[in-house]
Formats: sequence, structure tokens, C-alpha cells
Amino acid sequence: MPGHDILFQIALMLLGARLLGEAAIRLGAPALIGEMCAGILVGPSLLGWIHPGDIIVLLAEIGIILLLFEVGLEADVERLLRAGGKSAAVALIGFFAPFLFGYLACRYLFDLDTLVSVFIAGTLTATSIGVTVRILRDVGRSGSREGQVVLGAAVLDDLLGVFLLAILYEFAMEGTFSATGAGAVIMLVLGFFLLAPLAARLVAPAIRYLLRTSRVPGVIPVTLVALVLAMAGLAHVLGAPQLLGGFAAGLALSRRFFLPFGALLRADHEFTERVEREMAPVIQLFTPLFFVTVGLSLELGAVDWGSPFIWVFSLSLAGIAIASKLLAGLLIREPWHLRISIGMCMVPRGEVGLIFAELGRTSGVLDAEMYAGLVLVIAYTTLLSPFWIKLYYSLFQHRFETEPGHAGAA
Amino acid sequence: MPGHDILFQIALMLLGARLLGEAAIRLGAPALIGEMCAGILVGPSLLGWIHPGDIIVLLAEIGIILLLFEVGLEADVERLLRAGGKSAAVALIGFFAPFLFGYLACRYLFDLDTLVSVFIAGTLTATSIGVTVRILRDVGRSGSREGQVVLGAAVLDDLLGVFLLAILYEFAMEGTFSATGAGAVIMLVLGFFLLAPLAARLVAPAIRYLLRTSRVPGVIPVTLVALVLAMAGLAHVLGAPQLLGGFAAGLALSRRFFLPFGALLRADHEFTERVEREMAPVIQLFTPLFFVTVGLSLELGAVDWGSPFIWVFSLSLAGIAIASKLLAGLLIREPWHLRISIGMCMVPRGEVGLIFAELGRTSGVLDAEMYAGLVLVIAYTTLLSPFWIKLYYSLFQHRFETEPGHAGAA
Repeated sequence: MPGHDILFQIALMLLGARLLGEAAIRLGAPALIGEMCAGILVGPSLLGWIHPGDIIVLLAEIGIILLLFEVGLEADVERLLRAGGKSAAVALIGFFAPFLFGYLACRYLFDLDTLVSVFIAGTLTATSIGVTVRILRDVGRSGSREGQVVLGAAVLDDLLGVFLLAILYEFAMEGTFSATGAGAVIMLVLGFFLLAPLAARLVAPAIRYLLRTSRVPGVIPVTLVALVLAMAGLAHVLGAPQLLGGFAAGLALSRRFFLPFGALLRADHEFTERVEREMAPVIQLFTPLFFVTVGLSLELGAVDWGSPFIWVFSLSLAGIAIASKLLAGLLIREPWHLRISIGMCMVPRGEVGLIFAELGRTSGVLDAEMYAGLVLVIAYTTLLSPFWIKLYYSLFQHRFETEPGHAGAA
Repeated sequence: MPGHDILFQIALMLLGARLLGEAAIRLGAPALIGEMCAGILVGPSLLGWIHPGDIIVLLAEIGIILLLFEVGLEADVERLLRAGGKSAAVALIGFFAPFLFGYLACRYLFDLDTLVSVFIAGTLTATSIGVTVRILRDVGRSGSREGQVVLGAAVLDDLLGVFLLAILYEFAMEGTFSATGAGAVIMLVLGFFLLAPLAARLVAPAIRYLLRTSRVPGVIPVTLVALVLAMAGLAHVLGAPQLLGGFAAGLALSRRFFLPFGALLRADHEFTERVEREMAPVIQLFTPLFFVTVGLSLELGAVDWGSPFIWVFSLSLAGIAIASKLLAGLLIREPWHLRISIGMCMVPRGEVGLIFAELGRTSGVLDAEMYAGLVLVIAYTTLLSPFWIKLYYSLFQHRFETEPGHAGAA
């Protein structure tokens, strides 16, 4: 038996997320700040009560996969495709700009090795899709025009980040890298992303049939969680981030699923509503575990706060990380207030960045000080973004009033 | 990262449970038979695709804890207390009779050592509360008069089983056992069981306050799962089965919570209804994982089907296991048709029995053949009980029509 400790740990994570999340809102901050602070508080950074082991990491992964499922479920495929060009531009600029400027800063400002510089630059690339999605929701803009652009861009740059990670991983482990291997992975992932929603969509009639005929309750949570986890596993096998499997499954079941031959696979609004209603408690249960685990993983205790290098290093990289994502927003064709909000929403870094930093540390490429500096960069972008995005929207509220927005918890 | 395998495994467990559960119902069997068969199918017994590791065992434990939470939530504390005397009688007879007859059979029929005989007899004692509760639901009798007696008795004999296990464990490990130690554990557990529902009840106003004031959705799943898991962990720390923590938390929030000073802590029907509605998908998601894991744990592949000893040993012990629980039902004062159904519902063995057998094997007290025989005894009682209980209720339906029953999935 895994014992009782883990039960207390999960209970503590849930309770801490809820209490600090509520406290954050009462102080005018978004709830996810409270949830991440709960992780920082009970994790290795401060109290050290919980160290994220396999079980907690798995529950957190299920949390982010289910959150992306919900995002997919609420997404409007047609609008997402229409925003596709802009999303791609934001993703590409927002990926290559921090990589390039991060690399140049490390190489010539801090005089580091090429491999070290590449690792650090890689850490700065990928937006945290989980944090970004959650911020958009907390400010009630997840269904808005800029929200669609940001969502598409975050998905794409997560893919780019994972491709880069795969290449660097191969290189760090074997000292070489094959372009054909990387190309094959990219084709597989793109194929998955085009076919997965279609495949999941074909499963929907079977679930609806079970729902009509079954005498055992629980059809929706059981079959949909099975579908979502299987798609996430499949995404992972093909080399894509697991959370994209959840997103693909959500898209497939969304109200506004769109296909050239959509008549055949027309949406069933009643079914989608029931899916949303019955999946909500499951998603609400797992999601905070993800944000608490982000807090647990930050390990701010590893930072030597007295070292001047840490401050110069982390603040200059953070400046690059923030400016280059803002740039990505500013360079597309949208009204200026939307360009700025798109850029700001792309700033938070998270999962992929932490994996980069962790990989750099465990493979010996990054030393403890650089690792701590990178953790700080991720912490700045993730912990500060919700504040200034909320502030921006409340200051320029009048500009956004003509834009369609989702009802939200703001 | 724990990797993608576990995601596929969980998806497979959920999907297998649902498909074989539906198939079982269409063939006239209860759904849980299908769910356990799914575990036997994909587990070490047949295909060997899934071996229950720490993560799966934890998810299964959360499943049984949440199921017991739901049982507690639906229970009628007043009726449970009124049935208390009869429940205690059924539990005590149903605990000591299989222990005594099992011991005598091992000692004098199969000529085994005292310690070996005690272990085997211990395996036969505890009713599987999870299987029993699920059968009562599947036949629509969970709220009935005999259902209350069985529920109380199953809870009590689970406690007795765990006490015996603690004593045997101490004895097997240290060759000695202290009566004062065992007495202290018993007092702690009884104290927990009296105080825990009260403590959980005092938390309810805080949850209701959050529910009224929070702007972040998910108050109920997050806070209640945290409460239930914390109570389960506490139960475990005090030496009681974890699932009783879930039961205590459920009782505390039930519509018919009953206390001498109940006016102070009166039930809030609207709140309880909302708890039932929002917790249902979470419970429905985790519960099948428990029953599949029971199937995974049976390891029927360990049985040497050609050995005559296995058959004589397992069939005679199964006879004792079944007859002694029936006896416990027959000896109380109730109309005869209720005595029989109570006895039949107490027959299934499960979790505690498997833990006994496992402990016996790992401590070297039981050899592989005896272990396999015990696994078979547990399999007989668990896999056959749902059939004959369903048959009994349908044959003698007219006798039960005057008794109050719950609407169920039968």
C-alpha cells in the first residue's frame, strides 16, 4: 500500500490551493497565484512538507490534460482556424525571438559555452499554456478575439518547445542529432493533431449510445476521462506534449466542431452540455493539483539569494523573456490594444521551461547557479503576469467593451 | 515524468470496466462482475498488460474511500444506530464463526501448523464492504432494512478484521504480541469513529460559507475530496481501515445526520443535494478503478489448476466461508427472508482477505499453493455472490415488496 502520507499530501494540496486561491482573490490577485503560492509554501521552497513524487506529478499531469480538454471543449474551431495565421505568427516570433536574444545574451554578455547558451535560450521559448489559459479565464477573456489568437499561439509554441527539447535531449545524450529523425517526429505530431480530433469525434456516437442505453450511472466521467487519457498517451507516444491530446479530445466534442463535411458529424448541443456539466467537478478537482505542483516544482530554496550573479542573470533573462513575447504580439496586424494584450498573455513560462532547466541540470550542462537563475525567470514571468494582465484589462476596459468576451470569474 | 504508460493503463481500466460492466448487465449479471472480470482479463491472471503498482493501488483506494463516502452520505444514521445491535451480532458471529471453523478445518482436516491455520482462518473473516455495498445497490436494496443491518455489520467486521490483522502482523514479525498495544489501538479507532463524523460536521459550515462567497468554481469537489482524504489518512494513522474515514465524512454530511444535540448541527438539505450532485461524477470516475483493481489483484495465474489439493482445500474453505456468514444472518431476530438475505450479503470477501493472504505469503507463513487456494476462496465468494443474491431477490420479490427499498439500478 502506498500508505496514508500521500492521502494527506493530496488533501493538503487541495485545501491549500482553495484557501490561498480565495485569499488571492480577496487581495485582488488571480486565484492561480494563490494556488502556485500554496505549492511554494508546502513544497521544497519553504516548509518542505511535500516533494513532488511520481504520484503527484501524475495527478498534476492529469490536471493539465483535463484543463486543456475543457479549453478544447469551449473552443470555437472555426474562429481558431481563422485566427490560425496570426497565431502562427505570434508563436513563431515568440519562439525564435527569446531563443535568439537569450542565446546572444548568454554567449556574449555572460560569456557562456554554446551548448549552455542553447539550453538557457531554450528555457525561455515556450509559453505556459496552462497558466495563460487560466489567466484568460480569470479575467473573463477566454472566448475573446485575442483569446483565440493566444490559445492557438500557445498550442503551437508548446509544440515548437517540445520539438526543440527533443532535439536538445538527443544532442545532450548522444552528442549528435539527426534531422530526419526530427522531421519524422514533426510529421507524426502534425498528423496526430489533424487526425486526433476526427478520431475522437468518431467515438462520440458510441458514448452517446451508451448514455442512452446504460443502466449504470457514470457513463460520461468514465468514458470521457478514458478517451482523454488515451489521447494524451497517444500524443506522448508520437512525441507531442500530453496536454495536446486532451486539447484534441476537447475540440472533437466541442459545440462548434467544424469540418468540411460537418453535416455528417454535426454537433449535439444537448450532449455537449451534459459533458460540460458532468466533467466540470472532475476538472475542477484535478486542475488545482497542477498549479500547486508548478509551485512545488519551483524549488526557490535552491536559489542563493545573496549572489549578485543570480540577480543580474535572472533579471536580464527575464527582461528578454518578457520583451520578446511582447514583440511577438506587437508585430501582428490587430488593433493596438489587442496586440499588447496578446503579447502580455504570451509571457508566462512554465512546464516546458522547467523541463528544459531540469534536463540541463541533470545532464550537467547547467550548474546550480544557472539553474536557480532560470527557475527565478520562470517564477517572475508566471507569478507577475496575472497581476499586470489583470491591471491592463481593468485600466483599458473601455477599449475592450466592443469585443466579444466570455462571462468569467473576473 | 511517470510517462505515458500509466495514462494508457488508467484509460484501459476505465474503458474495460465500462464495457464489461455493460456486457455483464446485458447478460443478466451485476455490473461489478464485469468490472472485476476486466481486471482479471487485463491483469496478471490473463493478458498481463497491467500490474497494479503504487499509482493504481492509490487510485483504487481513493475509489473505495469515495464509494464509502457516498454510502455514508446516503446512510440514515438513526436507522443505522437502531440496527446497531443486530449489526453487531451479525458482525461478531460472522467474524468468529469463519475464524473458528476455518481454524479447526486447517488444524485437524488439513493437519497444518497453528500459525498457518490462524492466518488462513483470518483470511476468511472480513466481509468485503465494497463488494457488499455495490451488490446492494445493484439490486436496489441499499436503503432497505436488511441493507442497514448489513452495512453496519460490514463496517464492524472490517474493523475486527483489521484488528486481527494488526495482531497477526505484530506476531508474525516479532513473534510476540502485546494486549495493551492492541487495546490502545481499539480504543483509538472507536474514539475516531465516534468523534470523526462530529469533527467533519463542524467543517461543513466553513464549506458552505466558501460556497456562498467564492468566485472560483469547484468548491465542492475540491474541499470535499480534501476532507474525505484527510479523514481517510487520519483513520489509517489511528489503525483503522482508510475507507472508514470516507464513511465517517459521508455520515457527517448526510441528510439524516443525527445527534442528541442535532438542533445545533441541523442538516441543510439543499447543501447535501448539491454535494451529491457535484460529487457523483468524481465518485463514478474512481469507483470502477477499485473493482478493476480487485480483479487485477486476484492473480489467478498463480493457481495450479491441475493440483487436486487446491480444489479440496479451496472448496472446503469456501464452504466454511459461505456457511458461517449465512449462519450469522440466520441467528438474529428478523423475518426469515431478511435473515437469509443478510447472511448472503455478508458472504463476499475482498480487500482485507487479500491483505491477509498477501501478508501470509510475504512473511513465509503460507506457501504458494495455500496462497493460491485462498485467492480462489476470495474469488468464489466475490464473483458468485452477486449472482445468487440477484437471483434470490428476483425469486422472492413478493416477500420484499412490503419492505422499504431504495430506487436502484437493478
